[in-house]
This record gives sequence, structure tokens and C-alpha cells, in this order.
Amino acid sequence: MLTISIDTSSKVPIYEQIYKYIREEIKTGDLSCGTGLPSSRGLAQHLEVSRNTIDMAYGQLLSEGYIESIPKKGYYVCALENLYLEGIHVKEPYPAQEESSPDPVENSSYQVDFSPSGVDMDYFPYDKWRKLIKECLIDDNKELFLSGKHQGDLALRCAVQSYLHQSRGVQCSPSQIIIGAGSDYMLLLLSHVLGEKRNMAMENPTYKQAYTIFKSLGYGVMPISMDEQGIRVDLLEGSGADMVYVTPSHQFPSGIVMSANRRTQLLAWASQKENRYIIEDDYDSEFRYFGKPIPALQSQDPFGKVIYVGTLSKAIAPGIRMSYMVLPEQIAEQYRAKAEFYFSTVSRIDQNVICQFFEQGYFERHLNRMRKVYKAKHDILWQQLKESGLQGHISGESAGLHFLLEQKDETDHAAEIEKELVEAAKREGVKVYPLSEYYIREERRKPTILIGFARLKEEEIIDGVNRLVRAWRA
Amino acid sequence: MLTISIDTSSKVPIYEQIYKYIREEIKTGDLSCGTGLPSSRGLAQHLEVSRNTIDMAYGQLLSEGYIESIPKKGYYVCALENLYLEGIHVKEPYPAQEESSPDPVENSSYQVDFSPSGVDMDYFPYDKWRKLIKECLIDDNKELFLSGKHQGDLALRCAVQSYLHQSRGVQCSPSQIIIGAGSDYMLLLLSHVLGEKRNMAMENPTYKQAYTIFKSLGYGVMPISMDEQGIRVDLLEGSGADMVYVTPSHQFPSGIVMSANRRTQLLAWASQKENRYIIEDDYDSEFRYFGKPIPALQSQDPFGKVIYVGTLSKAIAPGIRMSYMVLPEQIAEQYRAKAEFYFSTVSRIDQNVICQFFEQGYFERHLNRMRKVYKAKHDILWQQLKESGLQGHISGESAGLHFLLEQKDETDHAAEIEKELVEAAKREGVKVYPLSEYYIREERRKPTILIGFARLKEEEIIDGVNRLVRAWRA
Repeated sequence: MLTISIDTSSKVPIYEQIYKYIREEIKTGDLSCGTGLPSSRGLAQHLEVSRNTIDMAYGQLLSEGYIESIPKKGYYVCALENLYLEGIHVKEPYPAQEESSPDPVENSSYQVDFSPSGVDMDYFPYDKWRKLIKECLIDDNKELFLSGKHQGDLALRCAVQSYLHQSRGVQCSPSQIIIGAGSDYMLLLLSHVLGEKRNMAMENPTYKQAYTIFKSLGYGVMPISMDEQGIRVDLLEGSGADMVYVTPSHQFPSGIVMSANRRTQLLAWASQKENRYIIEDDYDSEFRYFGKPIPALQSQDPFGKVIYVGTLSKAIAPGIRMSYMVLPEQIAEQYRAKAEFYFSTVSRIDQNVICQFFEQGYFERHLNRMRKVYKAKHDILWQQLKESGLQGHISGESAGLHFLLEQKDETDHAAEIEKELVEAAKREGVKVYPLSEYYIREERRKPTILIGFARLKEEEIIDGVNRLVRAWRA
Repeated sequence: MLTISIDTSSKVPIYEQIYKYIREEIKTGDLSCGTGLPSSRGLAQHLEVSRNTIDMAYGQLLSEGYIESIPKKGYYVCALENLYLEGIHVKEPYPAQEESSPDPVENSSYQVDFSPSGVDMDYFPYDKWRKLIKECLIDDNKELFLSGKHQGDLALRCAVQSYLHQSRGVQCSPSQIIIGAGSDYMLLLLSHVLGEKRNMAMENPTYKQAYTIFKSLGYGVMPISMDEQGIRVDLLEGSGADMVYVTPSHQFPSGIVMSANRRTQLLAWASQKENRYIIEDDYDSEFRYFGKPIPALQSQDPFGKVIYVGTLSKAIAPGIRMSYMVLPEQIAEQYRAKAEFYFSTVSRIDQNVICQFFEQGYFERHLNRMRKVYKAKHDILWQQLKESGLQGHISGESAGLHFLLEQKDETDHAAEIEKELVEAAKREGVKVYPLSEYYIREERRKPTILIGFARLKEEEIIDGVNRLVRAWRA
């Protein structure tokens, strides 16, 4: 007979206490394979609990495979050819503490971090997200736990298509859209679809993560200088590049909007050779504060030369791993031939929740709200910088989540001057970002500092600018 | 003054009706930028509702950026430089119906599909999953919406490490584990980490998805014949391959367990040259019904030559896109040099939920239950096949989710004979799978049919075997 000490004052139900006790006995081998268990009536009497309680505990053990019921004989401990239990007492060889904490504490010495990346998660509609997840998991929605379409669920692709069409002018059918777990994955997949490694031109300065990825994938990378209209297509012509990666709506990090003329030139360049393509990364088109909307380059492309890439990392949250890619028909065909067999990298549940987030209007409202939130931070930072008397020209004010503070004179030593400014700021507890970090190849130019605001509160912005004044006036 | 017809019998709150009406007016342009809205008191009187109701509607419009409040003047429609709204009336160019239904209906003509793939989702602990998601989204858990560690959250890697150590004998630290969105992604990432394309040996027959991926990634693929002990290492020696992809615990699809002797030979082969590596795909080690547990090849590897890949697609659900890869130290170093900068492909929320699923014991219980469920189906199918009088040898009975029905005599025409058997079964409404589908290169062998059971109910199994008897006796 099993003697189990039952704690009637515990929050754990009695049947669960009994179930857990027996389960442990089986796992440790104290109740070995083939051992008969007492009858539920006998054990109920012995433990002075109801028979129903014992039946529930036995039922649980039965359903989980610890015991089996042999008709007319009773319950027996199973022959657990159970891999999971094997070696359960083996000492853990590697403690969890082995690695350092997930986030390096390098930045902890800063009072204010004007990072140009990151998002403000204080205004995320967590309640809506919970509601959508709850709704989509209601009624044991089995379908969502099975494999879906490799390109992404059709309903989600339709929602993305509709959004891109309405907000960015993108022209495509859902069959040209690929949903994937983040922009890095999209570029990895795209590189695989394109096959042979190409020469990739990039704006100089540029988004360094994309640069690192292209380099690591074996692309030859050609930095192309920019002027106030955008990437210099005249330099692109002679570069030997057959692909180009651009951010035309709001160049990262310079904030330049590619001019209509330059767009025409760029599309013409791509149209001249069969294998030329443009990757348009529309990474933060959602946040624009002044002026007319800038349509996507894809919307102006009559040649089928633009591969459009977008992400929900900024518009929703970076922890939600979702990006999308719109392939021109010719590349879509290559995708179908070379990569269609890859299973989707986004869970069905996430796809469903995000689809509903679009369809039920939450996405639109969230964007409207965030535009307002960021605009307010933007205005405060703008005003503080203006009133601070800090030297230099402020730009990048029409869109995005950072400003650029640019010195008056061009020099060959921009990187060194920026380094001094960054270090002076650091001594006052402020982290700012040198434009040199974004250059693939340095150029004669005006020293420029990036000042981002997405993650800062009003008082931090004010404090930060005051610190910059102290740092740079000294 | 706005005249809004309010439906007091509607379930939609009155403030929301007003809010929605005004929002639509703004979106359509009927209320244009700069238009002043009536005072909340005035509109309340006009509509005969409480002023509080109007304040709520205005508050909502305000927070979403549709209107702005100008002190001492009132509410005004915002200058919506709002990309999202731009073109909202443009006709949808591509209707959602364009693509065919997500699942091809090809199989609908079958009464019974003995597919060797797929899982039974009837016993998934949906309630537990919901509970974990709910817990992890409680208190606006912001952290989970931000970017995490690129290799996967440390807590999840510790849980995976502990599980693999206990159940499979795998020896590793969490720093050797990469979490990613599915096994296809893992192989894509691995190929990138390994750099130059190699010659990849594969068991013949093999898992065709992996074969397709290696081929598409530019690997030379060498099919290596098997015998009853597993892959023939003598043939591997002369093949010129420098990598090999194997399923030693339960070969897919033959069900052969690699013998101890063969494992030693394989590890010795890998140890002979610096660049030789073994990819061990432990795709379904969870479902073993008889005999001693088969430890992972990785656990027996003293040389650091085994790259271990596993998935939660079978053990949890295919819609949950999560796999893991354990890199030997040397490859882990290459990962850090070449691919560590890739952001994770699994959402933080999913990582957290799965981590809790392990830590709170749900995974173990679910596996125990599923082992029982599949064992019951397995037993019924085994018994039905035995009693059916069908000719041939039944194998693959100790593990996994399918049997093999093998004819007595070797032939050079195995594929044709299998095709006839498959077609005869089709005429009786049963889908079975020819082993020829899994061969990279055909061989002289015994014709063999795969009969899977994971997704079938008891009565379907019985019905299916009866149909096979009719099909093949004729």
C-alpha cells in the first residue's frame, strides 16, 4: 500500500498530489515496471480520501502513459521504454548561468542613449494582441498547428498586399509576396533564389546589417556615393554592379528622399540589362511627419526590376519576427523553381494574429497612434536642438526616428571629428552615434552625428540635449 | 453640425458608433483637414446623448491621430499626411480568390491516406498552450516584443539542452545550440556557416526534403547504399564525400537503427579528415515503442564531428516553427564568425511559451501521451496487417509513425512493382507510398510500400487494410 502524506491545506488539489507522488515514484524507479497499484477503493480507504479522487489521479497517470489498466486485474506500472525518462538523474553538465546576461550592460554607463534604432513599446496595444491570440486559439483551432503555405498564408498575403497597395502604392498580386521571419531571413532566401553571387551596389552610407549579410553571403559589395538627390546613378553605371540595394523613401541613415529624376535614372539603369535588379528596403516608411507621401519605388517600376522588402519590426515590434518581400514576376518564377519547397519560417498562429491585426483595423490605428507619439518626441527634440545653440545643421526632420546634426564644413577627417564628439558626449553620460559607423568606405564630407528619439521619454530628451550642450561647449 | 444616426439597439456602444462615423468621414475626405468639430456639449445636445459619450468618441479619435485639440479653440481634423489612408479608395487590383485553396484537393479522392508524414493533433494540450500564452502576455510583458538573442533565448536553450541531455544523451552547452524557425532554415543557415559547398553523402533511400535542399544549395549529393546495419561506411570511404547526412536512431524511411559497429565506423570516418562532418537528423526519436532507447550519435562522438539537428514539428506541432541545432565547438566558432549577426527567426513569445512548455513538464506529459496514442494506432495497424494475410514482411515496428511492407524477392524493377501496388490501392480508395519516392538513385532491392498511421483513426486503419486486401488480392 502506498503511503502518501497529503497536505489538505495546500492549493494543489489532492488528486494532483497523489498523481505527482506516484509519478515521481515511477520516475525514480521506486515503483518499477510491472508493479501492481492498489485498487482505487483500497487506496481511497487507506488515504482517507474519496474514491473519485484516486480515480482522477489514476486517470491522469493512465493518460500520460505511466500506468496501464489490465482488464479484471487492475493498474500496473508501465514498461517505460521511455527515452525522456532515461538518465533523468544525470547531473546537469552545463549550468544555465554559463552565459553572460542576454543584454550586454555596456550601455549602462549612459544616462541618455540617443539610439537611432529601437521602438517605443509603451503604446503597443497589448490588450488587442492578447484578444486576437485568444480568439485565434479558441475552439482548439487545429488547423493553425499544422503546416501552412510555404509563402505564407493566403489571407495574410492578401492583407499585406492590400496594405502595401493602399499605403505605398505597391502593385502586386499575393502570389508575388513571400512572408518570412525577419528581413535577414528574407535576404538570405533572396540570395538563394538569385543563385550565383552578384556584385551588389549599396548607398554609402547604408544600413550596415544588410551590408554584413551581403558580404557574408559572398557578394561583391560596391559602395556608391550619394548627393542630395540620392544614390549617384552616374557612379553606379561604371561600378560593374548588377544589383543595387537602396532605401529610396527615406535613406538610412541620411534621411534623403530619392528625387523623382533619380528614381527614373535608377529604373532606367536596371532596365538596361536583363540581370539587373533593385532591392528596395522600405524599412520605416510608416513614420513620415511632413510633406507629401513618398510612394514606393516599386510602384513606379514598369520593368519588373524592383524587389520590395518590408518589415513589421518597426511598425509592430521587433520581437514579432515578420517581414515580407514582393518579388517581380521573373524572380517569383525563380523562387518557385529554386526555393518554393522551403517551409515557412513564421508560425501559423503568428500569421493569423497579424492578419487579424491588419484586417480588424488595429494596425492602422496603432500606426496612427505611433505617428503621433513619435511626432511629439520628434517635436521636442527638434525644439531642444534648435534652442540649445548647438552648432550645425539639423536634418532628417521630415520622417523616421532620428535627426542628423551636421557640421558646416567638409573635411577628410569626418570620422575622427565624430569620434571626438561621441567621446565628449560619453563623458557627459550621453550616447550619440557617428555617421562614420554607416559608411562602407569613408569620404570627404561634413562630420555628422545621429540623434535618435524612439525609445526616449520627454524628460530624457531634454536632459540629453542639455548634456550635449555641456559636452560640446567645453 | 454632424448628423449621425445612432442605433440604440445595436451591441456597438454609442460612443463607438460616433467615433466610427467621424473616422469614416475623415477617411473619405468628407470632413477635410482643418475642419473644426462641434463642441462636445453642442454635439451631445444635438444627438441627444450624454456629453461623456461624445468625450469618449473624441478621445479615441484624438489618440489615434485623426483629430487634434487646439487649446481654447476646440477639436480640428488633422492634416493627415497619412500614408496609410492615401489611396484608400483605390479598387483592389487583385482579389483574394486568385490563388487556389491552400491545400490541394488531390487527396480527396482517397478514403484512407496511409501517409507516413503528419501528426495527430487531436491530443494536443490546447488548453495548456493557451494558458502559457496567456501567462506570458500578462502585465504587458514588453521584453517579449523586443529583439532577443540571435541564437535563441538562453532559458529556452537551457531547456532544450536539458531535454536533449536527458532523453538523447546529447552532450553540449547552451552556447552550442541554435534555435531557428524549422529544420529547412537550420540547413540553410548551416550551409551558410560551412561556407564552400561540399560533397554531401546521404543514405539511400533518404528524407527527400533534405536532399532537395542540399541540391538547391549547390552541394554535390552522393547517395550511399544501406544494409541492415545502416549506411555502408565502406562505400562512403570511396565516395569523395566530405560530409554525410544520416538518421541513425531510426533511419528515414527504412526504420533501420544504425548498429553500434557502424556508428563507430562512421565516427572514425569523420575523424580521419579535418573538414569531415556528420549531420545527424534526429527527426522522430521521441516515438519508440520497443527495445532499449537509442542514444544520439552525437552522444558517442569524441571527435566533435557531429552536427545534431532536431525539430519540434513532430513532438509538438508542425505549425509551431521551431527546430534546434547543436554545433560541435569548431562549427560553433564558424557560426560566431560568419552568421552570429543574423537575427533569430523565432518570435520571443513562441520561444517563451515553448520554454515554459518544457519547464513546466507539459512537453514530457504530452510526449508520454502521444507515445501511448501512437502505440495504440501502431498496434491496431500491426494486428490488422498480420491478420490480413497480405504477403510480405512487415518492418519498422519498433519506432516512428509508419510500417514498411516488403516483398520477399529482390528485383531490378522494384519501382515499377511498387507503382502497380500503389495504383491498385488507389483504385480501392487507399493512398499508400512507394519506397521508390525516397530513393535518390534506384537499386536492386525488394519492392516496399510505406504505410503510415499518425493521422488515422482506428476505424480508418481497419477500413484501409481491408481495402488493401481487396486491392492486392485481385
